[in-house]
Amino acid sequence: MLKRILIALLVLTYSAHADDGYRLWLKYDLIKDAARRDGYARSAQFIAVNASSPILQTAASELQTGLQGLLGKSIPVNPNAGSRTGGIILSVSPAPNADVQTLNNEGYRIVSRQNNIIVTGKTAAAVLYGTFALLRQLQTLQPITNLTLTSSPKVQYRLLNHWDNVNGTIERGYAGSSLWKWYELPERLDPRYRDYARANASIGINGTVVNNVNASPRFMTGEYLKKVAALANVFRPYGIKVYLSVYFPAPRTVGGLKTADPLDPQVRKWWADKVKEIYSVIPDFGGFLVKANSEGEPGPQDYGRSHADGANMLAEALAPYDGVVMWRAFVYKADPKGDRFKAAYEEFKPYDGQFNKKVLVQVKNGPIDFQVREPFHPMFGAMPQTPLMMEFQLTQEYLGFATHMVYEAPLFKETLESDTYAKGKGSTVAKVVDGSLHGYPITGMAGVANTGSDRNWTGHTMGQANWYAFGRLAWDHSLTSEAIADEWVKMTLTRDPQAVKTITGLMLRSREIYANYTNPLGVHHIMGYGIHYGPEPWLDKAPRPDWRHTYYHRADSVGIGFDRTATGSNALSLYTPEVQKQWGTMEACPLPYLLWFHHVPWTKRLSTGRTLWDEFTTRYYTGADSVRWMQQQWAQVKPAVDPEIFNDVAGRLAVQQKEAIWWRDACVLYFQQFARRPIPAPFKKPERTLEEVKRLVDIYQMR
Amino acid sequence: MLKRILIALLVLTYSAHADDGYRLWLKYDLIKDAARRDGYARSAQFIAVNASSPILQTAASELQTGLQGLLGKSIPVNPNAGSRTGGIILSVSPAPNADVQTLNNEGYRIVSRQNNIIVTGKTAAAVLYGTFALLRQLQTLQPITNLTLTSSPKVQYRLLNHWDNVNGTIERGYAGSSLWKWYELPERLDPRYRDYARANASIGINGTVVNNVNASPRFMTGEYLKKVAALANVFRPYGIKVYLSVYFPAPRTVGGLKTADPLDPQVRKWWADKVKEIYSVIPDFGGFLVKANSEGEPGPQDYGRSHADGANMLAEALAPYDGVVMWRAFVYKADPKGDRFKAAYEEFKPYDGQFNKKVLVQVKNGPIDFQVREPFHPMFGAMPQTPLMMEFQLTQEYLGFATHMVYEAPLFKETLESDTYAKGKGSTVAKVVDGSLHGYPITGMAGVANTGSDRNWTGHTMGQANWYAFGRLAWDHSLTSEAIADEWVKMTLTRDPQAVKTITGLMLRSREIYANYTNPLGVHHIMGYGIHYGPEPWLDKAPRPDWRHTYYHRADSVGIGFDRTATGSNALSLYTPEVQKQWGTMEACPLPYLLWFHHVPWTKRLSTGRTLWDEFTTRYYTGADSVRWMQQQWAQVKPAVDPEIFNDVAGRLAVQQKEAIWWRDACVLYFQQFARRPIPAPFKKPERTLEEVKRLVDIYQMR
Repeated sequence: MLKRILIALLVLTYSAHADDGYRLWLKYDLIKDAARRDGYARSAQFIAVNASSPILQTAASELQTGLQGLLGKSIPVNPNAGSRTGGIILSVSPAPNADVQTLNNEGYRIVSRQNNIIVTGKTAAAVLYGTFALLRQLQTLQPITNLTLTSSPKVQYRLLNHWDNVNGTIERGYAGSSLWKWYELPERLDPRYRDYARANASIGINGTVVNNVNASPRFMTGEYLKKVAALANVFRPYGIKVYLSVYFPAPRTVGGLKTADPLDPQVRKWWADKVKEIYSVIPDFGGFLVKANSEGEPGPQDYGRSHADGANMLAEALAPYDGVVMWRAFVYKADPKGDRFKAAYEEFKPYDGQFNKKVLVQVKNGPIDFQVREPFHPMFGAMPQTPLMMEFQLTQEYLGFATHMVYEAPLFKETLESDTYAKGKGSTVAKVVDGSLHGYPITGMAGVANTGSDRNWTGHTMGQANWYAFGRLAWDHSLTSEAIADEWVKMTLTRDPQAVKTITGLMLRSREIYANYTNPLGVHHIMGYGIHYGPEPWLDKAPRPDWRHTYYHRADSVGIGFDRTATGSNALSLYTPEVQKQWGTMEACPLPYLLWFHHVPWTKRLSTGRTLWDEFTTRYYTGADSVRWMQQQWAQVKPAVDPEIFNDVAGRLAVQQKEAIWWRDACVLYFQQFARRPIPAPFKKPERTLEEVKRLVDIYQMR
Repeated sequence: MLKRILIALLVLTYSAHADDGYRLWLKYDLIKDAARRDGYARSAQFIAVNASSPILQTAASELQTGLQGLLGKSIPVNPNAGSRTGGIILSVSPAPNADVQTLNNEGYRIVSRQNNIIVTGKTAAAVLYGTFALLRQLQTLQPITNLTLTSSPKVQYRLLNHWDNVNGTIERGYAGSSLWKWYELPERLDPRYRDYARANASIGINGTVVNNVNASPRFMTGEYLKKVAALANVFRPYGIKVYLSVYFPAPRTVGGLKTADPLDPQVRKWWADKVKEIYSVIPDFGGFLVKANSEGEPGPQDYGRSHADGANMLAEALAPYDGVVMWRAFVYKADPKGDRFKAAYEEFKPYDGQFNKKVLVQVKNGPIDFQVREPFHPMFGAMPQTPLMMEFQLTQEYLGFATHMVYEAPLFKETLESDTYAKGKGSTVAKVVDGSLHGYPITGMAGVANTGSDRNWTGHTMGQANWYAFGRLAWDHSLTSEAIADEWVKMTLTRDPQAVKTITGLMLRSREIYANYTNPLGVHHIMGYGIHYGPEPWLDKAPRPDWRHTYYHRADSVGIGFDRTATGSNALSLYTPEVQKQWGTMEACPLPYLLWFHHVPWTKRLSTGRTLWDEFTTRYYTGADSVRWMQQQWAQVKPAVDPEIFNDVAGRLAVQQKEAIWWRDACVLYFQQFARRPIPAPFKKPERTLEEVKRLVDIYQMR
């Protein structure tokens, strides 16, 4: 009989064997080492929960699920520990309690006391985060005896931004269609909504903007608010609030008013009423995200009003509630003589201090648009009276879609650790964003999501690491890229020590490799037009001057790069003198930023000893060669990684290798026309012509 | 130890427990009745394969997988049976063999002989189909002793048409994004490609057109042909050929020629060379599907040439190979005085006999566009010298997307069983399509796919039944809707006899219910503009007259319906006299077709005893009420169906119920303006106004 059951179970498990990546970093696979498992089990004999709330129930249930998987044991959940020991107590503590005194509202403390593990915090959400932190200890095989783990999130609003459209497509999405099934909502709730919330809660994300910043007015109708409310109901027990992107002219298109002028009393009343309606169906609604007067989206300037007028109107409508306004600074006007680099600063700087206290201005990490490397946005440090929120992009719009392995934590960290010198040395962007530099009363960090309906959520399995890293850094920007990669690999791919080392090594080098074969030395915005796929540095026709790529690289017979010093656009003047000094001369400027700020002669000798042309081409070649190295490294971990995941990544690396050579060939052949110099030894001239690589670009731009 | 393994297995199976629908009808879950299982096992002690080919390997491996699941036993595969008995022999038989004499190339015979089960046919593909037929016997709990099962497909080309775009979206797709990951191909092969092929092979589908008929020229480039070839390599061992939709001006846009005139020698040479290139990478390429001079797509008429000129040019390019041309008849010109009903007939009829022998003309089931009910297309029976291929639509463009349960087999059957009287009584559409009526040398049937990246493939779980039914009917159009539903339910949802009965009952009524609450009595084309969602009978503005809905329903103070008799457009004259007689008068015309052919006074007394207005509104009300009945029926099968699937369908039924009332309210309120009569007792006037239901339509059409 037992044999028969075993066989039946084996059959059942057959389909579960291959790992399709759906479970992300919440795998909870049985820990193989029985001694370690038994050790953990001695400290996890029961779960006690000292209060009742949906979020605490989530915590207890997640802990139970995790322990069931990791230890292979069903652990009972009780309302309290009584006199028992050897268990885990989840406990919301009243504020004066010493355990929670130093924590903020979402911070947790995990302590071993009287032979129990106590997970505590001021709120249920804090306990939930602590629970996931405790599970992480087990998942990464850390000790759980004599614990004292304390952590409070450094920023308050830790959000994903979904550029998801109502028709189910995702702008700049490379992992299938939208997770949100608007035609099915609110009646049918896809089980995946819950798994989405779990994944986010596990990394500390506490909010999600569910619709594209190029917003549909549908979301300001009762019909769609019911759908959004149904999502909010699923997310609430995970401590996640729902936010909406706003279509600024909604008072006209939805409300039937004659105007959407933010100073018009009827418009203001319409928004106040709309906000009231929203809160009547979503009592913990998070607030609004707004893209206005940007890339053709309407906004307050259509009525001669300012960004502050628009944002403040929405903030006032939200005044009776907890919600906030996140107003995006991503604006730039078509100006052939200007420098897009300066546009947002120039439009927003004059309004510093004029925004309502419920407004955050959401600023992309760099001044252009999510390039593989950008200098930090000059607004950071320049808006002491306006809470600036960071906007990072997780989806790899400019980072090779879902076929290039680019671990983004080093990119995020590079921006966060950049020193603005706004209040002297050490005035990092991180300190601007976490509010400590200027004393911002509210703080936030947003990541443009890379999730979609693909079974593994992110298309590229390794893309999961970017979602994970964003959450971890939004919680604590002082974590290192290394530590985050190490955690993620152990939880997601393998606990084999050598394989962990190999994979994290790969991840940590991946972004520099990508930069080398696509945008070395700070050259930027030379990707395929419109879809942003592949190389197209030759693009010199587009509806706007700042959508042409010759605008950015400015290659000529003398050299290449955008002079942003005083002899050029002088965008550099937007930064503090210390920063200007660091980037201000070709000699001082670190090579990764060189062509962001200088038009450098091809013959210029660089700190590497090579001329600019030789260094530039060498990076394209070594970058492309490095993808072969990545393939070799990945091949080595095969025995330690699930076969389906191994094949997934190996297949994508093969695509990456092909495209890296495409990028290399396109760029060296194109720029060689200007430099008129040979490819430096030992590299060989591309086997194909510039016309051939251009034709490939054309193919991918056909309808 | 055993206990520990059991626990570990239980943990592993945990996530596999809920049925997400991915396995479709190939579930192979363990048969619960041990006696029955043992009985089957006695006849399946080994698998023997008498030859080696990738397709036979597929058959053996599928059989092994199926038996492993159904019987919980690992069955060995041997090259031959030797003297053993009690096994299954998969055997390709040479042609003179008596077993295969009466079979066509893909037909199979399953016989019990000398205590073995022999699955045989003239080709490996035939044996593969026989293998799936044998598995179906087990899955539906039929006996497998003393078997004699013989079946040959009635049409040769049994294809899915994917309206999938290169950017991953699907035109009229409601189940996520495209299955084809063009950015990853050819290097990475999604494991799902194989499962797609398995599912199709199991129902006899032998070809797939992978790109939208609104075709991208990318597919005529070497870059994309490599990607298509990679798919073809996955599909080949399942007997499935790849076909491509053609962008007619490709010689210009891809080839750089000055024209795409089909009579231009350079153009003809370009196509001949292109076909040669295609066959060099896809040796078993299936052929081309063409939408030309239709809805803005270019075509031969742009050069003053005919559909025959265009199709014949492609056919000649294919002459050295096996491939065929499928030329779509879906054409209609904007003509405010014309009747779209007649357009395709008028354009194609004059060319009967002028098409190359490799051309099939692909005709939609009805003359307009996949409405919930259409009279059979008048071309059927009218083109004796031109093989006409049937085009059905599986994706529910006009049938409620993925939230309305509409089992389409009755719709397909209704068309197939319609009598054209082309050669006297019994000249059914099915006999036209299977070639028996006119002696067509080649025959085919295409289904516009309802598949997408959603985990369960079709969005609505019940949509899987439409994919299944299409395959089964393309193989054998004489199967009944009942028998197909019965098979599908047993293989997919439950083997509980009462639940099977309840669910098949639901399915068989579902299409009439949908017709009643959306398009009763033959009213048609009154859905939401553009996206085809929800009701919009009031639409009287559109870029073309035949995109306005008043064009179709023609409601006025006298009555409603499109007079297509001699007093009107006389479209009826395109049919044989017998058909004209059947539909020619209001009195004779069956009610489901009434408003297709007649402008009927509101006061006209119908065969039901009610006036037209009363019958019309009664159907809207009873139709909407029937959705409640569907919900009740579904609730009853809860104990017999997997909980995840149960919830999926229950959730979608709730949406359907809401939308049914929306349709009802919209239509009765709108048409009441013309009829100026009360809602008949016992039904109550809608609780909302026409303006309110219109507003809902507006919301879903906002950007």
